[in-house]
Amino acid sequence: MKNKRSSIVVIGGGTGIFAVLSGLKKYSVNLSAIVSMADDGGSTKILREEFGILPPGSVRPALIALSNSEKLVADLFNYRFSQGSLEGHNLGNLLIAALAEMSGSFEKAIIQAGHLLNIKGEVLPSTLDNARLAAKLEDGEIIKGETNIDIPRHNGSLKIKKIWLNPPCLANPRVLQSILKANIIVIGPGDLFSSIIPNLLVKGVPETIKKSKAKKVFICNLMTKFGETTNFDGFDFVQTLENYLGENVLDFIIFNNKKPLPERIKKYEKERATFVEYRKADFKNKRFKIIKGNFLRPEGLIRHNSDKLAKLILRLLRD
Amino acid sequence: MKNKRSSIVVIGGGTGIFAVLSGLKKYSVNLSAIVSMADDGGSTKILREEFGILPPGSVRPALIALSNSEKLVADLFNYRFSQGSLEGHNLGNLLIAALAEMSGSFEKAIIQAGHLLNIKGEVLPSTLDNARLAAKLEDGEIIKGETNIDIPRHNGSLKIKKIWLNPPCLANPRVLQSILKANIIVIGPGDLFSSIIPNLLVKGVPETIKKSKAKKVFICNLMTKFGETTNFDGFDFVQTLENYLGENVLDFIIFNNKKPLPERIKKYEKERATFVEYRKADFKNKRFKIIKGNFLRPEGLIRHNSDKLAKLILRLLRD
Repeated sequence: MKNKRSSIVVIGGGTGIFAVLSGLKKYSVNLSAIVSMADDGGSTKILREEFGILPPGSVRPALIALSNSEKLVADLFNYRFSQGSLEGHNLGNLLIAALAEMSGSFEKAIIQAGHLLNIKGEVLPSTLDNARLAAKLEDGEIIKGETNIDIPRHNGSLKIKKIWLNPPCLANPRVLQSILKANIIVIGPGDLFSSIIPNLLVKGVPETIKKSKAKKVFICNLMTKFGETTNFDGFDFVQTLENYLGENVLDFIIFNNKKPLPERIKKYEKERATFVEYRKADFKNKRFKIIKGNFLRPEGLIRHNSDKLAKLILRLLRD
Repeated sequence: MKNKRSSIVVIGGGTGIFAVLSGLKKYSVNLSAIVSMADDGGSTKILREEFGILPPGSVRPALIALSNSEKLVADLFNYRFSQGSLEGHNLGNLLIAALAEMSGSFEKAIIQAGHLLNIKGEVLPSTLDNARLAAKLEDGEIIKGETNIDIPRHNGSLKIKKIWLNPPCLANPRVLQSILKANIIVIGPGDLFSSIIPNLLVKGVPETIKKSKAKKVFICNLMTKFGETTNFDGFDFVQTLENYLGENVLDFIIFNNKKPLPERIKKYEKERATFVEYRKADFKNKRFKIIKGNFLRPEGLIRHNSDKLAKLILRLLRD
């Protein structure tokens, strides 16, 4: 009899889901990372414009997180040129652009890059359509382009009222399949408006998540992001996510309750990011279960502990 | 008892020695490809200037020729961007430049690139010094830069009187070791002034070839190259090579005597390349042995048949 492995879908983009994916890849599960296709800054911007491809910069961190290749290959995919005419270009992005040109398909390029990186699982762009992210601020200003939200040129104290994709995008069919087959769907952590919600703006994705019998988990961010989630607390994160995902969809919210030492937090003052607190009372009418614990990496940047997250996700899967 | 494998050194650069290396890699021999460091055109020119590295463009074809990796990896090393700000850049060159930046050493970068390409044998730059090739034409004009010789801006009907490296370069010690250990040294085929002789301009290389007990073989080019070897016949090739290598050094000269069909030759008219003929009588006072035969690839570009070359070299090695 075939041993049926559990299927885990992780939804995010950028570096946020690195901790989740790199923790989960050590277990014998089917892993699908669904990443947003809204990135349009830096090296990715140039490659989108010059090659007409989808953003390689969004799939690269997920590919590297899932990689089991020797370190040299992952290092090359991460390498960024720091001088001359190639300055700012990321070699992994260039490799993906070249693979897309060679195979004539961005999807094939991701599969081939995954093969070169010997990844566990798969990385799926949430859409194969080309679109730009736009945001409306509370004062009515419209911001165009993911990079202008991610690296705010606007008054970062103003709240983002709404974001959308222009033109509207249809879901990658493989994404919908993997959501339907999933035993557990993990959303986040990651930049809420520039990495996570863009996946939910793709037509078919939130509808299919709702339809899926998988357990649905949101891993709340540890720190806010100025210009996106300025001064957000745990409730703001969940409420904003539910605006795009729908209410009564999530089954579990994972909050970290271990506050980093002041000297670790101090390093984030420059970028005006603050530690995300939450009050249990805010959630009293919610049907999801709150899981709190120390999910903080013991040192360095304020990131989730990937082993602890992976163990928790597997426990939720089996419970 | 340890089974002692024969050591073969192939000297060239650019695409010329591709046929020799890709044929020989199928046999259980120790292979060293010695390549010139004079290239300074196109993608290589930019990388030399911006990264201060030696020319990746000269090692790349040898690495690919020796590769036993899956096709995808070799294809990536060969891929050339054809649009936008990356136009003309070769991805293999960028990979080598990134490896050189990451490891802090061009030599290590070649070893790592060889590892990624799973090469048989080794690729050695003839020198680790940074120098430019210069040429003096028969009318006294000085041409600076390998690319200006390779892609002539001068009157290509004029003969090259002399070429040299500026500043003078010392040999890579590993090159001298491999030459001393070699059982057979194969020179060429390849662009005489821009790929082959630059190796012999490196102090220590021709002296060590002379000293080596290896059999020394020159594989003469099939076609001339306008601006370098305009209208050369077999004797001109050998005589010019001997000007830099020394007389009475070569043991064997391999000439192809199978003339390609006129329609194959016709394709070379535009670049003013002609088929290389030779007359045995020209060589009557020479101590080397002339080996003639049909070494022509049956179709496509006028190139050597790599299997036939490899078999011949192994026969010479064992005789």
